[in-house]
Parts: sequence; structure tokens; C-alpha cells
Amino acid sequence: MPRFKLTLAYDGSGFHGWQRQEPPDAPPLRTVQGVLQETVREVLGVPVELTGASRTDAGVHARGQVAAFTAAVPVPADRLPRALTARLPPDVEVLAAEEVGDSFDPISGAKSKGYRYTLRQGWPHAHRAGVFERGRVFVTVHRLDAGRMSAAATRLVGTHDFRAMAREPEARLSSVRTIHSCTIREGPEGLVQIDVSGNGFLHNMVRIIAGTLVEVGRGRIEPDAIGEILASGDRDRAGPTLPPDGLCLEWVHYGAPA
Amino acid sequence: MPRFKLTLAYDGSGFHGWQRQEPPDAPPLRTVQGVLQETVREVLGVPVELTGASRTDAGVHARGQVAAFTAAVPVPADRLPRALTARLPPDVEVLAAEEVGDSFDPISGAKSKGYRYTLRQGWPHAHRAGVFERGRVFVTVHRLDAGRMSAAATRLVGTHDFRAMAREPEARLSSVRTIHSCTIREGPEGLVQIDVSGNGFLHNMVRIIAGTLVEVGRGRIEPDAIGEILASGDRDRAGPTLPPDGLCLEWVHYGAPA
Repeated sequence: MPRFKLTLAYDGSGFHGWQRQEPPDAPPLRTVQGVLQETVREVLGVPVELTGASRTDAGVHARGQVAAFTAAVPVPADRLPRALTARLPPDVEVLAAEEVGDSFDPISGAKSKGYRYTLRQGWPHAHRAGVFERGRVFVTVHRLDAGRMSAAATRLVGTHDFRAMAREPEARLSSVRTIHSCTIREGPEGLVQIDVSGNGFLHNMVRIIAGTLVEVGRGRIEPDAIGEILASGDRDRAGPTLPPDGLCLEWVHYGAPA
Repeated sequence: MPRFKLTLAYDGSGFHGWQRQEPPDAPPLRTVQGVLQETVREVLGVPVELTGASRTDAGVHARGQVAAFTAAVPVPADRLPRALTARLPPDVEVLAAEEVGDSFDPISGAKSKGYRYTLRQGWPHAHRAGVFERGRVFVTVHRLDAGRMSAAATRLVGTHDFRAMAREPEARLSSVRTIHSCTIREGPEGLVQIDVSGNGFLHNMVRIIAGTLVEVGRGRIEPDAIGEILASGDRDRAGPTLPPDGLCLEWVHYGAPA
């Protein structure tokens, strides 16, 4: 049976994350996987099992999540984005669809992923998210030194054990990951964007990287201390886990076309 | 008693417009005036009557609405934005506050107002609003010729009877208004912004101007026909009233500081 790769955007504000959740004694929670799987079932007339490249947490957004399913599809793949999006709620959208090989696995096949964390700094620019970006930026009252943040960001690049910047990594699994790039960009009215890409990310890793870079920007952690923090493996030495609001999964890259 | 001028931003998606509405047999509708008046009452401890410069309709947004009220305020005006915004729901925000003269009337004192109407044209750019701009743009499947739209826009500038581009103007009131500028700007991915400013606007006037310019952009009305349409006073000859989603009150200008 043919297999399909979907590229998705969603506003995570109204979802309990990507992964389907069906508590035994309560109605199922609203999740991206749940909503999308149900829509695919409606449109194709058969149930499917969707696999997502990244299990984004509640409140985390995506402009380039990837998911795959296997089914006999009665329409060409290039019609799927419009057919599915027309039936999806307004906060999730299928941007692209293509047929892929039987063995395509959006998780293990991913060569790299890119995330952006967006924040606004410092009153009077902001004391809370503006009405047109609520749920999509993290607001800090502190002034951030972007030069210091950039210096720290370059020290994250490379292959490291990121145990100190992850939520409860499983001891039996490797917490070594490779960061390909981490850059800081300043925009108008106190906007700061942290772009980070790598071969994979531990749970909450980008939010903790962002929280650590904010501590650096505030002057509470030195850029030079990043290496020691990583080497220590001590979660308490890194910065806080920033809220999901500012986080967006921008893209997932695969190798040669599957 | 001192009088205060507030500058406001709101996402109109969740409001039944600006003006307070209290149906006799039902709970009051959620309106910007209602929510803001209640918050001012909570913060200052006294009831106030808020007057807004523009009675924006349900779903219409604002980045620069102006409102005024009279009350003995226990804090300096420059503390009001933060104090009020902290208690307001996330979709409305007080951007600025200043003390004004007794006689300041946000309606009759307004010298000019600026609105922006935002739309996206043409599949494959868009078939509906993207997940991050839902409720804030109007999407048309048609391709628009921005040159034709600009040519038509310049013909709207000046002093005209805008009866043909208003919803049910009251016969006893003048429907003559002066448009100071009307410009078309194209952005990435099919974005089109219509910026219009003038000394005042009739009900639905900007949404009908936008709808007329879209008809011009599609080729169904000639730019040269704008003068005749205005002269006819015939609502049926202008374009449709576009949805509120794309409309935002950007600013209200007053003369010398009141």
C-alpha cells in the first residue's frame, strides 16, 4: 500500500500537544495527531495510523512538522493538502503531501530539525504578549545582551551530551546530540529569535537552551560557562525551561528523497 | 474631574465589536467597551463611561483605537497602561494613556483615522487563512492586479459622497467624507494591504472600499469607473462588503494636544 508524507503547520495554543491522548476515564484530549488522524479517516474512508517526526508538547507550534501514514488513497498526493485542510479546524493545516517509499519513517529518517524560540524583552516594549502574538512569544521583563547570547550560542554547536539541558533523560538512552547551528537574531521592539538546528533534540531541550541563553543575556550565566554546564550533566546549572508559547518546529529535513 | 485618553489594541476575533450590548433577556455580549469599562471600574474603584473614537464592528481589530473617560484617578496617567493591561484579558491591551482637557471628545475631535485591510490572494498561496493569521486576513482565491487596484485607489482620494460605499447611510445625515490617502502594498506570498485614511468613515465603508478594489483587481470593475460609481450613489454598483477579519483600525489623529 502507498505511504504518504505530510508537512503540517499548527498553532499549538489549542492543542494538548502532538500525541494522541485518551485518558481511560475522560474524553480524549484535543491533540494534533488525534484531530488529523480523524480527518484523514473522514477524507479517505479508512482508519490510518499517523507517525509524527516530533512529539511537540502542549502549546508548541509548528510550521514544518512532518507526519506519515500508509493507506490506499483515492486521490493524487498533490490534492491531499487542500482536501484535508478544507476539513481541518482553523488551527491546523496540511501544507504539502507526497508519496514516499514503504520504509519511510519520519522519526528515524529525520537527518535534522530546526526550531525557533521567539521572545520579547523588556518593558516598555512588552510586559506581556501583544494582542496579536499572544500564545506565540515569551515575554521577559529583562533586557538581554544579544552579543553575549550569540557568544553562548556558538558554544552549544557541536556534539555534546545535553543531559544538563533536558527534562529527565532516560538513563538507558544516549543523551548525546549534535547541534548544527544556533543563532540569535534581534528584531524591532525588543524581539529576539533563537534559531537552533540539530540532528535531534531531547525532551524540553530547546526550551532549556532558550532559558539558558536568556540567563546569559541577563548576565547571570557567562557565555564561557556553557561548556562546563554541559560537562557537568547537572540540570540545575542550566537556565529554566521557558514556556511552550515561544517555541515553533520550523522544519524537518530528510536525506535523499525517500 | 480629570479626563483621560487611552490608546488601545485589540484582537477583535473574540468580541461582538466595540459597543456595549446588553440584550434585555440575555447576558451581556462580550464587547471591548464592556470589558474595558469593567476593568477601569475595578482598577479605579468607580464606574466610568467610556467613549470610543470608532465603533468597530464584531471581528474588526485595532492597533490604535482611542477611548476617553472622566474620573478621579489615584495614579499618574502614565501608570494606567500597565495597571489596566495587567487586569485585561489577553486580547485587549492599553498601549498609552494621557490626561486631556475636559472637553476632549474622541469622536468629534478626531481629525483623521487610518485603517488597514489585509488580504491574501490566490491559491496556491492561500485557500484559507494560515494557522497563524486566522481571523486577521481575508483570503480570496482570485489573482489581483495591484496596478489596477492602485489606479482605482487614487480615484477614491478627495471629498466625495460615499453613499454608494456604505451600509444604509441615514438619509438625514451627510454621507460626504474626505479620503486623504488610499494605497495598495504587495507583500510576500500573495499578501495585499490596503491602507486608507480620511476624516471619517461611514458604516462598513472601508470593507466596501476593499471589496470594490478587489473587484477592480480581478478585472470586473474598471479603475475609471470609480467616479461613476460614487456619483451614482448606488450601493449595488460597488463591490461586496468584505468580512471583518481583514480590517484593523490603525490610528486616530487629533489636532493640537487637547
